[in-house]
Amino acid sequence: MKPVKVGVCGLGTVGSGTVNVLIRNAEEIARRTGRPIIVEQIGARRDNPDCDTTGIDVTRDIFDVANNPEIDVVVELIGGYDVARELVMTAIENGKHVVTANKALIAVHGNDIFEAAKAKGVIVAFESAVAGGIPVIKGIREGLAANKINWLAGIINGTGNYIMTQMRDYGRDFADVLAEAQALGYAEADPTFDVEGIDAAHKLTILGSVAFGIPLQFDKAYTEGISRITPLDIEQADELGYVIKHLGIARRSKEGVELRVHPTLIPKDRLIANVHGVLNAVMVQGDAVGPTMYYGPGAGAEPTASSVIADIVDVARGMNTDYSDRVPPLGFTQDNLDQNAPILSMDDVSTAYYVRLQAVDRPGVLARVATILSDKGISIEAIIQKEDKESEMVPIIFMTHQCQELQMNEAIREIESLVDICGEVVRIRVEDLDS
Amino acid sequence: MKPVKVGVCGLGTVGSGTVNVLIRNAEEIARRTGRPIIVEQIGARRDNPDCDTTGIDVTRDIFDVANNPEIDVVVELIGGYDVARELVMTAIENGKHVVTANKALIAVHGNDIFEAAKAKGVIVAFESAVAGGIPVIKGIREGLAANKINWLAGIINGTGNYIMTQMRDYGRDFADVLAEAQALGYAEADPTFDVEGIDAAHKLTILGSVAFGIPLQFDKAYTEGISRITPLDIEQADELGYVIKHLGIARRSKEGVELRVHPTLIPKDRLIANVHGVLNAVMVQGDAVGPTMYYGPGAGAEPTASSVIADIVDVARGMNTDYSDRVPPLGFTQDNLDQNAPILSMDDVSTAYYVRLQAVDRPGVLARVATILSDKGISIEAIIQKEDKESEMVPIIFMTHQCQELQMNEAIREIESLVDICGEVVRIRVEDLDS
Repeated sequence: MKPVKVGVCGLGTVGSGTVNVLIRNAEEIARRTGRPIIVEQIGARRDNPDCDTTGIDVTRDIFDVANNPEIDVVVELIGGYDVARELVMTAIENGKHVVTANKALIAVHGNDIFEAAKAKGVIVAFESAVAGGIPVIKGIREGLAANKINWLAGIINGTGNYIMTQMRDYGRDFADVLAEAQALGYAEADPTFDVEGIDAAHKLTILGSVAFGIPLQFDKAYTEGISRITPLDIEQADELGYVIKHLGIARRSKEGVELRVHPTLIPKDRLIANVHGVLNAVMVQGDAVGPTMYYGPGAGAEPTASSVIADIVDVARGMNTDYSDRVPPLGFTQDNLDQNAPILSMDDVSTAYYVRLQAVDRPGVLARVATILSDKGISIEAIIQKEDKESEMVPIIFMTHQCQELQMNEAIREIESLVDICGEVVRIRVEDLDS
Repeated sequence: MKPVKVGVCGLGTVGSGTVNVLIRNAEEIARRTGRPIIVEQIGARRDNPDCDTTGIDVTRDIFDVANNPEIDVVVELIGGYDVARELVMTAIENGKHVVTANKALIAVHGNDIFEAAKAKGVIVAFESAVAGGIPVIKGIREGLAANKINWLAGIINGTGNYIMTQMRDYGRDFADVLAEAQALGYAEADPTFDVEGIDAAHKLTILGSVAFGIPLQFDKAYTEGISRITPLDIEQADELGYVIKHLGIARRSKEGVELRVHPTLIPKDRLIANVHGVLNAVMVQGDAVGPTMYYGPGAGAEPTASSVIADIVDVARGMNTDYSDRVPPLGFTQDNLDQNAPILSMDDVSTAYYVRLQAVDRPGVLARVATILSDKGISIEAIIQKEDKESEMVPIIFMTHQCQELQMNEAIREIESLVDICGEVVRIRVEDLDS
């Protein structure tokens, strides 16, 4: 059969990984696809010493690739929004299929890109945009196609999970671990995308759309970072039988869809609570299958290349078929996307909470706090009051049952206004992730 | 678009789950596929009170379904070898696509079935045959298509994992837990298939073929059951930092392919060591992606139905495409299957071992055993000798480095022939499952 000709744009970590694996495993891949997959051209501003491009046409202008009539599939691995968008749109305009690892691009511009691709009858594939080498997009979109997905929850940022794991294992401060991670190259010089949950929210936006069949709405995803998590809270959570993880959570209820990234207490004995370091995992709960989980490396040259190439193989199989016989980009046909499902504001989301406050050790304080919670309709599952003989202040921890976030926020404002309460009240959401 | 008409053969647990989910989630599924999937006919010897078949044509002869000209996809859920084989072959002969949950059928007759399907240009899909609701066949076959798969290891029999979990958590005997599991309906009256590893070997055979692109060779898979595992060994393993799991392991090396099901010590901190009860999980290690894992319910009406219906959706998308544009049954095109890769006999397999023996507490015994191991080229990683003041016998445990099983078996025969050794030497294989 005719070979499939690929043009790779970007020769950074993922680009060089992709070219290397395509060459190293060319025979194994062709055994699967029944046709060779060939790197016809590479577009990159500079060479990469990790990648031997001997015999491959290398251009310094990535748009050469998008305009090359020989090329069937343009692989966008340059990252960022604007140039990447222009590159992908040019490739689509030229009738080429596109594979991209760019979560920001898909989360923000995906709806337009998929519309353009539909008009041109080409495929846009993005497995590598979420959770690196883990085939979780395929798992949800195809493997769980029988299900109404009720919720998913993922550790989808390796840097964040590395930091949380180090903080827990060694009782270290956030800033301390972050500085080390930056020195080791695990975290970027500007860590905002990772530690504030923006990167995770990009991925969560994509997962949510694939799970529920809704348009991509990154601007409506809620993000809360991990920079304010302290070793004290990690330790208290541990004593209570919980681990704190930075999760991306998408849930569908009658009221609407939740898309939220925030630190979360989860029971220690959940499998996902044992996913440590830079590894990623996504739990997906479907009404027929129940809870499932997908685990593996969420980043890195060859793990990401693994998903990029899986997409290329899918394109190789799908490129000669009718548009309607292909898996739609978001797993639901584009005219079947639910345009009206509201994304809930955090005020309307219900979760359980871990609430920690510092109170002056005086009679009646606990009662006053409990009364405030009760007045807001928040019921308490457990109260832990610690003795601290060296201080006038005592830490008090409440574990609450599910309540609306709006009520909790109002309660916290009232609690913080009490004279016997010192400083900010810490509140971390709690998820059971059971069924 | 034209609806896809499905005929379901067998209305037991999985059959009724499949019909129920197809009806309950008809709208969500059609949103994905862009066309309705309709249960056109059910073939079943008797009704199932768990399944409302109102308005569906029900026949008592499953071959009516295979011969029904209206039907596009025959779903074989009757189980067993012979009638199932005839049913599937009849359906294929009639140009129908086939979805089956029958691991025994695929593991034993799959090669012939796939050949017949190729000749007729129809799809045979079997995601539900392995690990119930977990989309692991799709994960390996498509999601990891870029990789040379090096090995996989799975907890792929829920009954066995339930028994091992109960034994570990409560220190109970195998026979005791099995009897309870039978009373509760978790284990069959004849538990041989589950506890002796035959069911797991069926699934492993399929996973191995999908991972390495080799023909199905169930007769060459090695099986060793869990009936001889004792609470003592579980406890000793725990002290050494290991959990004993009944694993199906497939590995590819220069020498050939390993296909083996046996109790295995794995380090406690591996994620798969924390998969408990009836749940299933499969680790898959690819050269590009590294280790990944797929976790979820391995059995049950709706989890299995989830995979059956995912296959039907794949058929709905693939039925109008060319044969060469579809994912081949084993993930590699049939003419690219490696017919010559030898399946290694256990004698030629290398693993590390846990060896436990009872010795008379007399000077020199340990030295004699260590000498036998050393003479066979087996190096020792750790020796644990326990004091037992109430007995003349002391238990001695050796943890060895990797060695060939043939050498280990010869060493054990020699050790058992020593006068100071009492009874059988227990040996359990050890796998690191690291990278």
